[in-house]
Amino acid sequence: MQTSKKIAVVGSGLVGSLLAIYLRHRGHAVDVFDRRPDIREVEFSGRSINLAMSFRGWKTLEEAGIDEAIRKIAIPMNKRAIHVVDKEVYFQPYGRDGEAIYSISRGLLNKKMIDLAEEAGVNFIFESKVWDVSLSEAIIYTGDTEKSPWEAHKYDIVFGADGAFSRVRHKMQRSSMFNYSQEFLEVGYKELSIPANADGSHKLDKNSLHIWPRGNFMFIALPNLDGSFTCTLFLPHEGDNSFAALTDEDKVKDFFEVYFPTINDEIPNLIRDFFKNPTSALVTTKCYPWVHGNTVALIGDSAHAIVPFYGQGMNAGFEDITTLNHLMNVHGDDWGTIFQEYQKERKPNADAIAELSYRNFMEMSSKTASVDFQLRKKIEAWFSSKHPELWLPLYSRVTFSNDSYAEALAMGDMQAAIMDKVMQLEGIHMDWNSERVESFIIEELKK
Amino acid sequence: MQTSKKIAVVGSGLVGSLLAIYLRHRGHAVDVFDRRPDIREVEFSGRSINLAMSFRGWKTLEEAGIDEAIRKIAIPMNKRAIHVVDKEVYFQPYGRDGEAIYSISRGLLNKKMIDLAEEAGVNFIFESKVWDVSLSEAIIYTGDTEKSPWEAHKYDIVFGADGAFSRVRHKMQRSSMFNYSQEFLEVGYKELSIPANADGSHKLDKNSLHIWPRGNFMFIALPNLDGSFTCTLFLPHEGDNSFAALTDEDKVKDFFEVYFPTINDEIPNLIRDFFKNPTSALVTTKCYPWVHGNTVALIGDSAHAIVPFYGQGMNAGFEDITTLNHLMNVHGDDWGTIFQEYQKERKPNADAIAELSYRNFMEMSSKTASVDFQLRKKIEAWFSSKHPELWLPLYSRVTFSNDSYAEALAMGDMQAAIMDKVMQLEGIHMDWNSERVESFIIEELKK
Repeated sequence: MQTSKKIAVVGSGLVGSLLAIYLRHRGHAVDVFDRRPDIREVEFSGRSINLAMSFRGWKTLEEAGIDEAIRKIAIPMNKRAIHVVDKEVYFQPYGRDGEAIYSISRGLLNKKMIDLAEEAGVNFIFESKVWDVSLSEAIIYTGDTEKSPWEAHKYDIVFGADGAFSRVRHKMQRSSMFNYSQEFLEVGYKELSIPANADGSHKLDKNSLHIWPRGNFMFIALPNLDGSFTCTLFLPHEGDNSFAALTDEDKVKDFFEVYFPTINDEIPNLIRDFFKNPTSALVTTKCYPWVHGNTVALIGDSAHAIVPFYGQGMNAGFEDITTLNHLMNVHGDDWGTIFQEYQKERKPNADAIAELSYRNFMEMSSKTASVDFQLRKKIEAWFSSKHPELWLPLYSRVTFSNDSYAEALAMGDMQAAIMDKVMQLEGIHMDWNSERVESFIIEELKK
Repeated sequence: MQTSKKIAVVGSGLVGSLLAIYLRHRGHAVDVFDRRPDIREVEFSGRSINLAMSFRGWKTLEEAGIDEAIRKIAIPMNKRAIHVVDKEVYFQPYGRDGEAIYSISRGLLNKKMIDLAEEAGVNFIFESKVWDVSLSEAIIYTGDTEKSPWEAHKYDIVFGADGAFSRVRHKMQRSSMFNYSQEFLEVGYKELSIPANADGSHKLDKNSLHIWPRGNFMFIALPNLDGSFTCTLFLPHEGDNSFAALTDEDKVKDFFEVYFPTINDEIPNLIRDFFKNPTSALVTTKCYPWVHGNTVALIGDSAHAIVPFYGQGMNAGFEDITTLNHLMNVHGDDWGTIFQEYQKERKPNADAIAELSYRNFMEMSSKTASVDFQLRKKIEAWFSSKHPELWLPLYSRVTFSNDSYAEALAMGDMQAAIMDKVMQLEGIHMDWNSERVESFIIEELKK
């Protein structure tokens, strides 16, 4: 048991509201601050990528007892549907039988989480801007603008769950010995949409994550409950095929006709949405430490914002909560130790999933279109099904297992080195599922 | 020729005041802002490491016609003096005949540069804190505190020469697509001092940079004109031998007696200075872009703060000015192009010297004490003197040449790979300056 504390969570996003539920369950008094209006009362922004909830995310929801409520708004996707120009769509299973990732609308999930948090007794304070934090005293300062008079709010503990451009972290960054980096990707993104058929059914296979890989750019589509798909165009900001180059309606139309002829027909509002929805940037942020004494901790994107190509941003943030929760079981009221152990355990894993997510852009946008890559995945799946104790594919370890991200990265690199050799074997395209290949991999694993 | 502009330089440090001189020479109206008092009117802080001016720094001073004035306050150091416990001091020449780096007191140099800038017509505004910058309009905002009323100052161009924790960069960092990192070293430093003998002479060889290498920490001493040495203890912040562990007089005395028995006698004010002078942190910062349109540019530490172990921080900042100056010659009033070319040319070089400086801590604090390392340096010097056209040692390329830092890093890595092989040659300690070794290196260079 823990002594009841007065706790502020800055940020009412997915991680902030779920953390608040966990803290309420332990009897703490929890205020959640957000600079934006209540997401339940405004139209959602048109700049979001659908979420892919996987094992780590579900686990955190289960331990809070709210997974069933969330499953009702989730659609399982058990495979990639790969759309290469002038070819039949190709389906690539994500895992073994029944393993799937779950498409959820970010807006819908966030609303639901805030409802559940309020039911649990969390107090939300919307449209309240946090400008500064006294780290050692756990005081947060709110006000209309950075220069207007501020109001001080005293707590025992403050969590910064305020996202990639966290104000809480911003304050920590100004203290000495705080390591920090932010790195923007040359690729940005824009939300688009494929509506449902007239009868409410989906225009594309409902249980797939659809990818149109085009080299240094791609288009993806994730299903929604109402028969629509939330789509994302990932495209360089600058250069030949880029957001900067798509300056008028004709250019956008031409671009989609050339590169995405099949989906072009499915998006009636393409032009309207393209110019209405903002072009967003993608950033990886890293920092250390994540905590200040026993008073302040960063969690989720504020500690480790990553690019979305592994579908693990939310899952990684939720896993932060799982770790914190287990440490609260072990260390009770010793928040100093809880926070130290928390950052020590999570930091290497956050760095690993950042690296894996960064790499996965090339996998999704380019490699998925390659016949060799598809064979490689087939060999891995075949070997793994024959020897599940010897080989868990990287994607499965990240998405369907409990293993740490750091371990997944290390094992994945080892496996990739072996698969590089396998793909060099003479005649591998002919006998990829032969005894020869099987014993070759087993020998390599022994090294 | 350039049309006269109204230019603000934020920061009156070495790079800021030298840049101001260059800009005045071109006829611009230049205001230099600094949040601190005039360095000429206050006691200097006790937290500085003596500077080592080398080729790049001198070149920038020469092109401004002020090198002679500065040479008067500089002491040439043509070698390292390496003090290993229980051994005679060992001298390692830095370059070929006459090549030296120059010890200069940071405070003295900064005062001199401000004098020279004022003579050139630069206007200094001290104790004026810049809090914000309108990047596109080149307006800077000053005020007593971040929340007090601010005064706006409109310019044509603003240079941020305001150091590792630049406020100008801070504003750029809040715009999208700005990459930034700050990484603190586990090693910090403290300024100490060895006074002159009673007759004003130096207690140690005057023309050496003295190093007491002790593995993961070290002590260095650089000569001053008045017979004293400015010394720096580099030591981990935390751990067994660390600043955190040296909590009282006895512990400091013991530490110096064990690790620095010879210098211990030379520092009468050791204890006083140790507890009076602050322990400072060392940080590497990187960012990109360095410029905003044709209105704002970062220069020196604000664009690329590095750790001091190659003695290149100031030299790299001065080389930024050399590059800018050459680009002003070529592109005249086209400041947009000047700024674009400036950042494109300097960024890879800033990254390279950051990497080299980081690596050089281990070279100074640990490798200099090793017999193998000393032999390695001897072989390089010998081969280089026989074949100057084939081999310029890394240290010389960085310190005594015009070659870009990026080139130095690449060539240095290539040479290191060859020297690794040379040191593996059977009996290398016996015949290190033989024909066999000579032809081995020549063959390797051909690969």
